[in-house]
Amino acid sequence: MLPQRQERPMSRTDMPEWKRLEEQAKGLKDQSIAALFDQDPKRYEAFHAAFDGIMMDYSKTSITNDVMSALLSLAKACDVEGARDRMFAGEPVNNTENRAVLHTALRMDARESLDLNGVDIIPEIHGVLGRMQAFSDKIRAEKKFTHIVNIGIGGSDLGAYMACEALKAFCDRDIKMHFVSNVDSTDLAEALLAVKPEKTLFIVTSKSFTTQETMTNARSARAWLEEKLGRPDVDAHFVAITANTDEARRFGMDDESIFPMWDWVGGRYSIWSAIGLPVCISVGFDNFSAMLAGAREMDRHFCAAPLEKNLPVLFGMVGVWHRNFCDFPAVTVAPYDQYLHSFIAYLQQLDMESNGKRVDRDGNVLDYETGPIVFGKPGTNGQHAFFQLIHQGTTVIPVEFIAALQPQQPMGDHHKKLMSNCIGQSKALMDGLRPGNTHKEFTGSRPSVTILLDVLDPYHLGMLMALYEQKVFVQGIIWNINSFDQWGVQLGKVLADKVMAKLDGGDMDSLDSSTAALVNAVKAGSVRGE
Amino acid sequence: MLPQRQERPMSRTDMPEWKRLEEQAKGLKDQSIAALFDQDPKRYEAFHAAFDGIMMDYSKTSITNDVMSALLSLAKACDVEGARDRMFAGEPVNNTENRAVLHTALRMDARESLDLNGVDIIPEIHGVLGRMQAFSDKIRAEKKFTHIVNIGIGGSDLGAYMACEALKAFCDRDIKMHFVSNVDSTDLAEALLAVKPEKTLFIVTSKSFTTQETMTNARSARAWLEEKLGRPDVDAHFVAITANTDEARRFGMDDESIFPMWDWVGGRYSIWSAIGLPVCISVGFDNFSAMLAGAREMDRHFCAAPLEKNLPVLFGMVGVWHRNFCDFPAVTVAPYDQYLHSFIAYLQQLDMESNGKRVDRDGNVLDYETGPIVFGKPGTNGQHAFFQLIHQGTTVIPVEFIAALQPQQPMGDHHKKLMSNCIGQSKALMDGLRPGNTHKEFTGSRPSVTILLDVLDPYHLGMLMALYEQKVFVQGIIWNINSFDQWGVQLGKVLADKVMAKLDGGDMDSLDSSTAALVNAVKAGSVRGE
Repeated sequence: MLPQRQERPMSRTDMPEWKRLEEQAKGLKDQSIAALFDQDPKRYEAFHAAFDGIMMDYSKTSITNDVMSALLSLAKACDVEGARDRMFAGEPVNNTENRAVLHTALRMDARESLDLNGVDIIPEIHGVLGRMQAFSDKIRAEKKFTHIVNIGIGGSDLGAYMACEALKAFCDRDIKMHFVSNVDSTDLAEALLAVKPEKTLFIVTSKSFTTQETMTNARSARAWLEEKLGRPDVDAHFVAITANTDEARRFGMDDESIFPMWDWVGGRYSIWSAIGLPVCISVGFDNFSAMLAGAREMDRHFCAAPLEKNLPVLFGMVGVWHRNFCDFPAVTVAPYDQYLHSFIAYLQQLDMESNGKRVDRDGNVLDYETGPIVFGKPGTNGQHAFFQLIHQGTTVIPVEFIAALQPQQPMGDHHKKLMSNCIGQSKALMDGLRPGNTHKEFTGSRPSVTILLDVLDPYHLGMLMALYEQKVFVQGIIWNINSFDQWGVQLGKVLADKVMAKLDGGDMDSLDSSTAALVNAVKAGSVRGE
Repeated sequence: MLPQRQERPMSRTDMPEWKRLEEQAKGLKDQSIAALFDQDPKRYEAFHAAFDGIMMDYSKTSITNDVMSALLSLAKACDVEGARDRMFAGEPVNNTENRAVLHTALRMDARESLDLNGVDIIPEIHGVLGRMQAFSDKIRAEKKFTHIVNIGIGGSDLGAYMACEALKAFCDRDIKMHFVSNVDSTDLAEALLAVKPEKTLFIVTSKSFTTQETMTNARSARAWLEEKLGRPDVDAHFVAITANTDEARRFGMDDESIFPMWDWVGGRYSIWSAIGLPVCISVGFDNFSAMLAGAREMDRHFCAAPLEKNLPVLFGMVGVWHRNFCDFPAVTVAPYDQYLHSFIAYLQQLDMESNGKRVDRDGNVLDYETGPIVFGKPGTNGQHAFFQLIHQGTTVIPVEFIAALQPQQPMGDHHKKLMSNCIGQSKALMDGLRPGNTHKEFTGSRPSVTILLDVLDPYHLGMLMALYEQKVFVQGIIWNINSFDQWGVQLGKVLADKVMAKLDGGDMDSLDSSTAALVNAVKAGSVRGE
């Protein structure tokens, strides 16, 4: 019997551009990166791009002129430009949820307009920004509240925390910011130990206002405050950021204390919305506004620059080269800036939640890799932690170095040492070393990208964040996936509820023996109980 | 012409045990893990191990009885037991540096003895522990110092910081701990903003007392303190932990302020030594001592338990199965405990610096993978960040869940929710879901290991840390590498010095165009300068 012909939908791997890149990768498998510089001493000129105080150097990779030309052909063939324009125009590019994706609108100028379903949404956005300004100005001026506790998780936590930390040099030191996210009570308990009840404002952030962790923490915070202040009326200490006004009202917030969210902004892209309120309070609305402006400039560049000069496109395609054609499973992010210590956690959500998908936009199972593992640590600390594996491990992991050229807290020659380490690392990864002793041998040709900012101020931070957002977008288009849903987080919630019912005494018979043993151990409070 | 026969040294891949595992992995490639529970409803019984308040469940993996038997045969054939005994006996198992590896001696009981080159080292170890006790008791009682700033990086930072955070429920709240590691001046500057000069003690930790970051920070801290106190005599505010007594004396420490390190303890294994001084100060010597006791009990178990009940051996071999036979490039660590938030960074160094190697103990280039990428985040936060990719990404990444059964800061039903999420996640990863819509589909059969502790107290933390240390050791033996050197960190230091010379005006001609452009940008303080 003849084997039946398999009906398979067209895949990216069927595209001639994809096949061409596969061929090129074969030919470059053992290419020395340092040798590319020998062949073309001006290689840096062709393999970097910059604008407005941000520069990306991707010359320390195995990418040649031919490869870059093929990568950009792939981007064209996948219609990255069309997809980008559809996103910016408010078309429902989040197709599995039939929603527009308009975090970019959140940073548009007040003088611009954007029509969504017949309504210009820019005035509403700027109306909310106005409320954020008034609210944060008041807090900063009055100092009635000197402790701000943000209660939120995932997209309602990581971006705001990251930006507050990244911009610490710009913050009001008399206002202490606290971030509570984990349902583990130690997270809230530690924050409550650090605040003064009468001077504390809680910002409860949840799009649905039903997120288990956030509402559990919000209720416990409220109970704590009622007890500490000795009265049930503590509403003035709570504000909400949510799309579910009714639930927030039930919690006790009045309408002036409720800031809206929109269904066309995903959690991991929401820092530009009212979710940024803690940032406004910490560093002031003008600085938050500058962050929006930086992101807006990156958006404009993304929309207008030709592909071969377009930072998000180039950044995305370098990543595609490494992931799909060099078969590297991961990316290390190494910001040589301690204020960016939480940028990695923010990025892990942005990238891995967006592009950790195994089916295409139409639901067909993919036959190629998508989102890489993203991990990292600020330099120079990473050098003293896991860089051993980056230099001499069996798995090649490209590094993304990030650094600001002007220090925020100048002190002796600290900054020069910091920068020399950053640059020294990318050179070491590329050059390698072949002494006689193989234990001391470095293969070299380990790729990296270096991103330089003039300074880590609100404007350039906004640029950097938007650069990564749009890089993730470009890769999502190349991989033909929906970067804006997150169905993968659902099943765990459902099964957590089932386990909760077992902990409350439900019938254990239906459980596998492992899960049953774990449940019994929790019930007993000891591993001897399983 | 006949091809010449290649002379190749014996590799692990030539071993019959290895080949048998490769065959088994082929057969189990599409094995449903849930189906293994259907076939053997009591599967958990065979695939978990426990002792003394710690339990490891590895039943939610594709490992069968035959696979485990083959894995333990491999462990026997690689002489894990002999290697373990040689390490504990003080033989120079760090062969590339010709050193003993005796972090295990640091936690031996005072009544034991261990001969190293004709000298019993236990009295000296306990002599130092006695000094640590006296010193930390004094600090805790007198409260002359209420701010402790630990200046150290890598192994002189990550373990002590992790333990202080993990044991926060046991700390003296009137003593504030600060950890400064990065050469980026913002790290020190932020710590100095938070302390009172006259009440601050700096602990300068560097084995060589020449570590660039640490000495730069120590000198800047000293200059700051001299200025703040208005006098040059600030020696009483500094103690050193170092093997280089002379350098510490030159810095200004007297002999009573210098705590020793030994060359038979690597940085990433040094938390059990004087490096643990910040932990003693924060939680008290008795608690530090309990941590040592927990580690000691794990060591004894590791040395005495039969392989099939031996937690570090089983844990290590599960990892080898995933890394070498299932081809998984990474491991996610998910402690469902906010106090363990920095356990992952500690583990990244421990694992990736130890086993990120590409040559065997004799310097032969390996033909198999070694240390995986280690990354993670506390649960439940990870669920709201990158777990999308763990559930639905194209790369399978085993998860290591860690949880404590008794909460540290009980509050409502927080802990029950935390545990239900932890257990729900491992079940979701295993079970998967096949609805009609592939976007909402979970393939399932994604493996995980769950480690439960009765409680996150000093004793069980010590057990957990030693479990991971010995797991890393077991894997290093299987991979036939030296887990105790770190040659891969050298080249970057050398090239950072070269870059530093260029920043100071050295000749640029010898540099590749990328490195030259980066150096020029730093000199100009702007990307427009390159």
